[in-house]
Amino acid sequence: MPRYKILLEYDGSAFHGWQAQRGHDSAQEALARACFAYAQEEIVPYGAGRTDSGVHALGQVAHLDFSREKDPREMKEALNFHLKPQPIVLLEASLAPPDFHARHSAKARAYLYRIWNRAEALTFQKGLFWHVRQPLNIAAMREAAGVFLGTHDFTTFRAAHCQAASPTKTLDALEIARQGEEIRIGAKARSFLHHQIRSLVGALKYVGEGRWTAEEARAALEARDRARCPPMAPARGLYLERVFYGEEETA
Amino acid sequence: MPRYKILLEYDGSAFHGWQAQRGHDSAQEALARACFAYAQEEIVPYGAGRTDSGVHALGQVAHLDFSREKDPREMKEALNFHLKPQPIVLLEASLAPPDFHARHSAKARAYLYRIWNRAEALTFQKGLFWHVRQPLNIAAMREAAGVFLGTHDFTTFRAAHCQAASPTKTLDALEIARQGEEIRIGAKARSFLHHQIRSLVGALKYVGEGRWTAEEARAALEARDRARCPPMAPARGLYLERVFYGEEETA
Repeated sequence: MPRYKILLEYDGSAFHGWQAQRGHDSAQEALARACFAYAQEEIVPYGAGRTDSGVHALGQVAHLDFSREKDPREMKEALNFHLKPQPIVLLEASLAPPDFHARHSAKARAYLYRIWNRAEALTFQKGLFWHVRQPLNIAAMREAAGVFLGTHDFTTFRAAHCQAASPTKTLDALEIARQGEEIRIGAKARSFLHHQIRSLVGALKYVGEGRWTAEEARAALEARDRARCPPMAPARGLYLERVFYGEEETA
Repeated sequence: MPRYKILLEYDGSAFHGWQAQRGHDSAQEALARACFAYAQEEIVPYGAGRTDSGVHALGQVAHLDFSREKDPREMKEALNFHLKPQPIVLLEASLAPPDFHARHSAKARAYLYRIWNRAEALTFQKGLFWHVRQPLNIAAMREAAGVFLGTHDFTTFRAAHCQAASPTKTLDALEIARQGEEIRIGAKARSFLHHQIRSLVGALKYVGEGRWTAEEARAALEARDRARCPPMAPARGLYLERVFYGEEETA
């Protein structure tokens, strides 16, 4: 059974997350329906990251198994045709090695969190950013980000229902940049706990507002206590940006 | 009567342009309604640029005359409160000299035109960009932009119903930059003819697609014939970016 690797972009506000759920529309189901329309086969697309309801994707990766070989370019165009007018699109499609697995072969994931930081209401930015009204102190946020970098028990910053076997993860990057009213927070790790990024962004916002010092962020991390986590950042500011599979793709 | 200068951002897809029109909702009317709710006065906001239906504003300027003096900060907050949830917001408000006029005092206007250039359908970008599927040749577009710079009779590139006394305008800047799939075209002039930017962007797209050379763009300009204008770029990619009033503000 030939396996295909695809790169997806989608507006998470239109879907109840990546994963198929009874009674809700998901990106995975939208894709499965398009596959059926294209090839009359029941395909279960496997995604690299199970984005939550409302979370967007700039570069979700999935794999698809078809019973017969396809021309990847033609497949991409046909699936995009059947996905219209839903806000989800294949940016790339290629034949993958049979042992490639979108989720298990991934070496790292990069997420982007976008904040629009101003007192006034949002116009164009609605649904795509977390609107934070109070001016955020970027230098203080960077100091706190330094606290979270590296290997830690992230119990404080994961969902109560997170199913990962261990709360210990290694955060390889947590970078904060401001461009006008936009603040971009980039996070990279081999993998993340459930709600980890949104919890960490909630903590960085606390620090940016002056409600926490970097030392208080450290104390909360070291407490390993979910009750110490500030309110999570909303899903609408989070984007699965890129999935890394090997040396050749990390450049 | 104290006069106030305000800076506005709005999503043009929600309005039938800036100017009030019977039976259609306009940005000007939305603002007038907010002024009435705030001060119980019938105000006619004057805008620096009469953006067409669907055209956005990142920095529209308007002036408002109230019968009594207001605190600009309080006025801004109150008008923003009354404008909700419409996608239009005051970014700044200040007391202006009595002879200030948003339209007549303007020394120059800068517009931004945004293209999303890829074969695949748009997701997040819908309504905010012109979707051009064929890869555009930026170098060729820049060469053609050079043809349009400076003082010319722009009859070919203005609306048939344009009411300007003269078709001659001086284009001070027409810059093209690509960032990933986004192409940004910046245009600056003291003033523009009706549909001038969208007509010029239509011509630049022709050149970028290889349908016209820069010399053909020049020939069309010199023909002074509206029938020679390629299809205009749609309103949804156009943004009134900034209005310039004097030396101190052009930095």
